[in-house]
Amino acid sequence: METVEEITVGKVITCKAAVAWEPKGKFIVQDVQVDPPLAMEVRIKVTHTSLCRSDLFFWTNEALGHTFPRIFGHEAAGIVESVGEGIDDLKPGDHVLPVFTGECKECKYCASPKTNLCSKFGTESLATGMKGDGKSRFSVNGKPVSRFLGSTFSEYTVVEYPYVVKINPVAPLDKVCLLGCGVTAGIGAVRRIAQLEPGATIAVFGLGTVGLSVVKEAQRRGASRIIGVDININKAAEGNFFGVTDFFNPDNLDKPVEEVIKELTGGGVDYAFECVGNPKVMATAFASCQDGWGTTIVLGVAGPATVSIPTRSLLTGRCMKGTLYGGYKPKTDVPALVEQYLHKDFDVEEFITHNLPFSRINDAFKLLQAGECLRTVLHYNETVN
Amino acid sequence: METVEEITVGKVITCKAAVAWEPKGKFIVQDVQVDPPLAMEVRIKVTHTSLCRSDLFFWTNEALGHTFPRIFGHEAAGIVESVGEGIDDLKPGDHVLPVFTGECKECKYCASPKTNLCSKFGTESLATGMKGDGKSRFSVNGKPVSRFLGSTFSEYTVVEYPYVVKINPVAPLDKVCLLGCGVTAGIGAVRRIAQLEPGATIAVFGLGTVGLSVVKEAQRRGASRIIGVDININKAAEGNFFGVTDFFNPDNLDKPVEEVIKELTGGGVDYAFECVGNPKVMATAFASCQDGWGTTIVLGVAGPATVSIPTRSLLTGRCMKGTLYGGYKPKTDVPALVEQYLHKDFDVEEFITHNLPFSRINDAFKLLQAGECLRTVLHYNETVN
Repeated sequence: METVEEITVGKVITCKAAVAWEPKGKFIVQDVQVDPPLAMEVRIKVTHTSLCRSDLFFWTNEALGHTFPRIFGHEAAGIVESVGEGIDDLKPGDHVLPVFTGECKECKYCASPKTNLCSKFGTESLATGMKGDGKSRFSVNGKPVSRFLGSTFSEYTVVEYPYVVKINPVAPLDKVCLLGCGVTAGIGAVRRIAQLEPGATIAVFGLGTVGLSVVKEAQRRGASRIIGVDININKAAEGNFFGVTDFFNPDNLDKPVEEVIKELTGGGVDYAFECVGNPKVMATAFASCQDGWGTTIVLGVAGPATVSIPTRSLLTGRCMKGTLYGGYKPKTDVPALVEQYLHKDFDVEEFITHNLPFSRINDAFKLLQAGECLRTVLHYNETVN
Repeated sequence: METVEEITVGKVITCKAAVAWEPKGKFIVQDVQVDPPLAMEVRIKVTHTSLCRSDLFFWTNEALGHTFPRIFGHEAAGIVESVGEGIDDLKPGDHVLPVFTGECKECKYCASPKTNLCSKFGTESLATGMKGDGKSRFSVNGKPVSRFLGSTFSEYTVVEYPYVVKINPVAPLDKVCLLGCGVTAGIGAVRRIAQLEPGATIAVFGLGTVGLSVVKEAQRRGASRIIGVDININKAAEGNFFGVTDFFNPDNLDKPVEEVIKELTGGGVDYAFECVGNPKVMATAFASCQDGWGTTIVLGVAGPATVSIPTRSLLTGRCMKGTLYGGYKPKTDVPALVEQYLHKDFDVEEFITHNLPFSRINDAFKLLQAGECLRTVLHYNETVN
């Protein structure tokens, strides 16, 4: 008896996808055609995808001038449906995470332990919305539909091999899909970029999933004080649940939050994490740091914006840096992270506030825009409890 | 027989100093009165002082609103004349460097291996020009004269104990005076802040003493490419002598120097050192760095200015930081640096382009302003060969 996958190999698949036809428009869940994978490409049956603020940022930010129609989504898990020529270590049925930054294992970045960038398979498709050959693997009645990173708001997607992370099939896909972006970014920022030491003080600006992932990991590593900053007042209680020791809403303070943080910590925090993507917040994070060693780590995506920082604070030892995906190399490092999750070194369930069927993607975005969720996991082809 | 020092102990000393009566004015070499040291202070007979660009910056920058008359000078060597109460480990005759940043060994900064700041004895006197008691130890006919850091443009100066570094008396004071600021800043920026690895590529912006000290130390550590950038065309040959492999004068290029550097290095340098003190140059240095790990290290003093950097480059792994005095704790680390100099681990003579008697300080500043010197060492009470 042939499996469903074997029937589809080598053929165009017509399936449901959520197509964004214009910036800020509604997502239309409709039939799309998904081409078979070319050489060194993988077609993945997406089982679960979660919504990330980057989807929202790129979907709603008209100034970026990106192409539409487009299929968003990049934090997901799934099962390999078929592979293109030249791929030896992935086969139909393998469980995978399609991640947004690749690893060719050949370029100067991949050869360096200092970075998880890849010069051949980075995030460059953001601008073009196309594969390296200038084409898309998605279409609607012959009209090409642009990609966005892994384009996981589709029952099937085609991703280049360097972006596909093979994981332990024991891992629950409806949970580890979160390791495809935000939670991993937060964990890695604490472990790899800050290399946070026990007893350190931190401030986290923006208590969404990324920020709370920073909070939780800092708590696990013994941070002595975890200051949370958010203008969403609901984040006070939520932050407290995750490990925030002191919460501030800048709108409710009669002086700048950086001054409050400096008073509270006797000079500023050891590490500040910016998880919003706002240059002014980045500057505030920098100003909240301790002279001598205070390090600001930017995780929030702000497009082409610049941040302005006082040169004097650099001379007195403050540092500003940033990270994408927590510094983790996807193929080299992320399978081990999945194992750590399976060994309960950390949790991801606590970030999942909602589970919805894929068909309710517009409701999921409403929750995200209203700040009423952490992660909403969309489920394909199954009943959601 | 009493020594000269013994005769002066406990008394006001009248000696020659170079007094700046107004910003950008001439230095007037005249008699000043130097009070005896109070508790935990040291009166030093300055034997040699070299001119640093920070003297020039603070002397000529009226916008800083600092007080005059003032005695500048902070890169120097000398001999203890007398000590105030409470000092056990310094005595008249000891050879010392009076440095610009202190070490109390008690505050949170001094307790941390991450910084060489000191919260009790930093550079705060810059603004007030006075000691912690609000007074000066210098006067002219009863009128107080402000200090500037160690105020070493005077035959005698009074410095708080935490700023005094006792060194091996074998070390030639007319040479190791350079370790009081610029050369040490450059060496430490490479060793401690960059932790430069063999084979690394660097760009150095500003080829004065600090920049060339970076160049030389990077060469010693096996940097594979050392790019020098300066608008003073004389620096091409001088840079080459110190170890610059590629020199660029931005004024002579038909495209931005950061583009030239990126082409030359295949993406940017591993480390960029800003040794000018100009926010635009700092931004150029940052733009000249490699994505993934490129680190910009600011050594140049720019006062209250801010630098603007693209947030996207932070996300892709670039880092911006800075250092004062190369990260070296003065009392803990600098005596060992002097020993390394004595063991010929590095050289300082190559930075001394001029030796002049102290009386010719105005000529020395003309050389500095014209970019015609590296370090000019001023000699007190001796004939200069």
